Amino acid sequence: MTKAEIQLSSEILSLVSDKTKVRNPVHFRDCIPNADHIKKHSNPIALTGGMPNHGFFPIENLHVTLKEKPFSSNNLIESSIPTIAKDSQLQTDIKTSLQYSETGGLPPLIKQIRQFVSRVVKPNYNSWDVIASLGGSDGINKSLELFINPGDTVLFEEFTFTPIINILKEKGGIPVPITLKEIFLKNTTELNYINELENLLENWSTLKPDLKFPKVLYTIPSGHNPTGLSQTLDHKKKVYALAEKFNFIIIEDEPYAYLNYKSFQNNKIELNQSNDEYINDLIPSYTTLDTSGRVIRVETFSKIFAPGLRLGYIVAHKDLINKLLKASEVLTKSPNGYSQLILNNAILSYGGIEGWIKWIIGVRDSYLTRKNTFIDNLLNSNASKKGYITPIDPSCGMFVSIIINIENHPNFKNKPEDYKDLMDQLYLKGVEYGVTFVLGHAMSVDYSYSSSRTNFVRAAISYVETDDVLVEAAKRTNDAVVDFFES
Amino acid sequence: MTKAEIQLSSEILSLVSDKTKVRNPVHFRDCIPNADHIKKHSNPIALTGGMPNHGFFPIENLHVTLKEKPFSSNNLIESSIPTIAKDSQLQTDIKTSLQYSETGGLPPLIKQIRQFVSRVVKPNYNSWDVIASLGGSDGINKSLELFINPGDTVLFEEFTFTPIINILKEKGGIPVPITLKEIFLKNTTELNYINELENLLENWSTLKPDLKFPKVLYTIPSGHNPTGLSQTLDHKKKVYALAEKFNFIIIEDEPYAYLNYKSFQNNKIELNQSNDEYINDLIPSYTTLDTSGRVIRVETFSKIFAPGLRLGYIVAHKDLINKLLKASEVLTKSPNGYSQLILNNAILSYGGIEGWIKWIIGVRDSYLTRKNTFIDNLLNSNASKKGYITPIDPSCGMFVSIIINIENHPNFKNKPEDYKDLMDQLYLKGVEYGVTFVLGHAMSVDYSYSSSRTNFVRAAISYVETDDVLVEAAKRTNDAVVDFFES
Repeated sequence: MTKAEIQLSSEILSLVSDKTKVRNPVHFRDCIPNADHIKKHSNPIALTGGMPNHGFFPIENLHVTLKEKPFSSNNLIESSIPTIAKDSQLQTDIKTSLQYSETGGLPPLIKQIRQFVSRVVKPNYNSWDVIASLGGSDGINKSLELFINPGDTVLFEEFTFTPIINILKEKGGIPVPITLKEIFLKNTTELNYINELENLLENWSTLKPDLKFPKVLYTIPSGHNPTGLSQTLDHKKKVYALAEKFNFIIIEDEPYAYLNYKSFQNNKIELNQSNDEYINDLIPSYTTLDTSGRVIRVETFSKIFAPGLRLGYIVAHKDLINKLLKASEVLTKSPNGYSQLILNNAILSYGGIEGWIKWIIGVRDSYLTRKNTFIDNLLNSNASKKGYITPIDPSCGMFVSIIINIENHPNFKNKPEDYKDLMDQLYLKGVEYGVTFVLGHAMSVDYSYSSSRTNFVRAAISYVETDDVLVEAAKRTNDAVVDFFES
Repeated sequence: MTKAEIQLSSEILSLVSDKTKVRNPVHFRDCIPNADHIKKHSNPIALTGGMPNHGFFPIENLHVTLKEKPFSSNNLIESSIPTIAKDSQLQTDIKTSLQYSETGGLPPLIKQIRQFVSRVVKPNYNSWDVIASLGGSDGINKSLELFINPGDTVLFEEFTFTPIINILKEKGGIPVPITLKEIFLKNTTELNYINELENLLENWSTLKPDLKFPKVLYTIPSGHNPTGLSQTLDHKKKVYALAEKFNFIIIEDEPYAYLNYKSFQNNKIELNQSNDEYINDLIPSYTTLDTSGRVIRVETFSKIFAPGLRLGYIVAHKDLINKLLKASEVLTKSPNGYSQLILNNAILSYGGIEGWIKWIIGVRDSYLTRKNTFIDNLLNSNASKKGYITPIDPSCGMFVSIIINIENHPNFKNKPEDYKDLMDQLYLKGVEYGVTFVLGHAMSVDYSYSSSRTNFVRAAISYVETDDVLVEAAKRTNDAVVDFFES
């Protein structure tokens, strides 16, 4: 099926920020007279750019040893990175990668990323493109920069990755939380806030009389941080319809999308899926619904390769990608060449995109085993059986949130301050028993708004050395919780 | 000699921007109750941060082959980068570097940078510190961010690295050029604008009635881009005295400082200096004069290691470094771990800071040979003997600027438009003869202000493969210039 070319409507362009509208960096290297009519020399010498010749770079050779699967030292893949690539369409090399390079990313890597997006993300139209970023936060920063003038508002899930709020406030933007009350219903398996969002938008002038109508929804649709839940395709369709109706941008932040457990509900563990099975099980991106070019997808290599790369990318309509390119030219320049060199080399050494997807499945499988170990042990704990806690089985990602049923605590009097007081007490019990979490209230956009829904903690299953540590962590969690409720 | 601790005065703090004053990013990981009174578990499990365990990283091992000298494949240095360092104070390793890491830079690398600054730059007081940046432009961006509110002004040398102007305008700042008329006197060997600067500051309200008094001077003191000239220590003392008198910040951008030819005037070539000789010949930094903490030094590894690193650092008073740290937390996060890993490993493999300085001397020596080849060939050209061009012998760096004496051109009528018209014609002669430069007018802060001093071109000697290409480039330059003047 041929997909459509779409053009950004004037409605969407009306959302663009003043700063973005006027941003047009001019580089001195481009200030040259038209030379079309001049007979060119056959072998010109350009003394223009201030690039050092690659002979000045101290690196002669890089040799990388890659793992076939996470945590495995079997079947290592040896790969040497050349000074000068034989096929510069495909390979990155030391000469090119360590030089000043394309602001939007090294062409061979960008080509691989485009292939990956076509194969895995599958946007709904043809006029998309990608641009490399300096990691997920940089991707969000630049995406917000496109739209936010001082005083503009952005919608957030009321619990979210709060460093984004700092980035927004830097631009004079104002965050507005969407209530997530469904996560506190028992046995919630999805992130659903369509009624709350619709109500907020329909009644904006009454509910938020002092605030401008929102330009952007920032969302973490898959393995939402902190709850670990995902939006269903049906939920996304409804949110997208609201975006069309009310004219706002959707920034989908998807660091966890590829750590997907969707097909593994009820512990039906099925490791080592084929690439096709794996891709079919992923929850479709908002970009697969996009008919206007109003969805911006932000990705990172932090979770599927390594955070130290400081490398990610943005998928969006090509006109927006062009604006992001101008922003990068002024705000950051290109991502570093080393990370691009090593990432592109790794993808090639894994056998291209299909091999890279296999690596990602390996990462997902390791997380899945961790997640099941931790959830099983929490569900079978006394704290759970006695109704003190309700662990949320995440559908994606690296976080397990645990609802603390503090209404069952003897000191709970249903006052707003009970939530923070009691949750802080629970945290200190954790310190005593040797297990620490992030407290729900720390991840709220606006604590005063969300206080009565902050009775949960977020546990990261990503950093511990082995699954055994998660067995012990679940045991300590139980002990701390039981002590908290019964002492 | 023990150097003084200094505190930033209220006069200096008055220059800080509104954005910087209110910037105080709070991370959710720090929102925890005080646990001082709690008996701690002896072996706690933290389920807090979203870092992947290093087992998830695909890299098992990195092996780097380093050159002893630029362009040399003799005496290669082999070096293996471990997954886990034996001495984590000194070495960086894959486990740490590929993880989320310190915003200000990896501690072992920062330690090496501090040593380098103490040994080579030698600031005048003790209370300085350093912070890693994502390259020179990022360093300037964040340094300007510290001070510039919309409407604030910054002084620039009238010809400069103009991408910084884009960065400044992004913040609503206004650039004001300082006239550089001395470079057009014959046989100029230094960058001197003290009279023009003093006059501008003394008569600001008359000369610039609509502009605020400047908060910052942005300067490239060594191997100034584009002229290649350097400020003498005496000039710096006078500028610093003006900064004290008029209360402005000096941002010194020093990408070229280590490619220093100062001791080699009159072609007295002396390669392979000792480290002490080399350091003694460097022109002292503005930081060596600083008694108030008003100098910010911006450095990059682009010219002495490789641009693809996207890595540099800033030297400033520690209170300003703290503000820069907060800015990095919101604006960029840490530089990428790969570049830090490989740079720190390279410095160690060269034998620490003294070995690293030897590498830098090797880079300088290669540039020096290039510079002398090009300058000699230009000086001995007909174009030079006939008075058509005056090459500027640079005292540092990778640029040779050539003054085109267009007052000798038959079509020169001393009208403002002659400068651009004739220089564009010369550029096109270059295209015909196979040599291209950056035109002087492209590097002006304000063309209309500087037009009658734009009769020069900038040649980069850095990118060509060998010295021979510079011989050919000088020949073509001569042919193009002679044709331009005589045809």
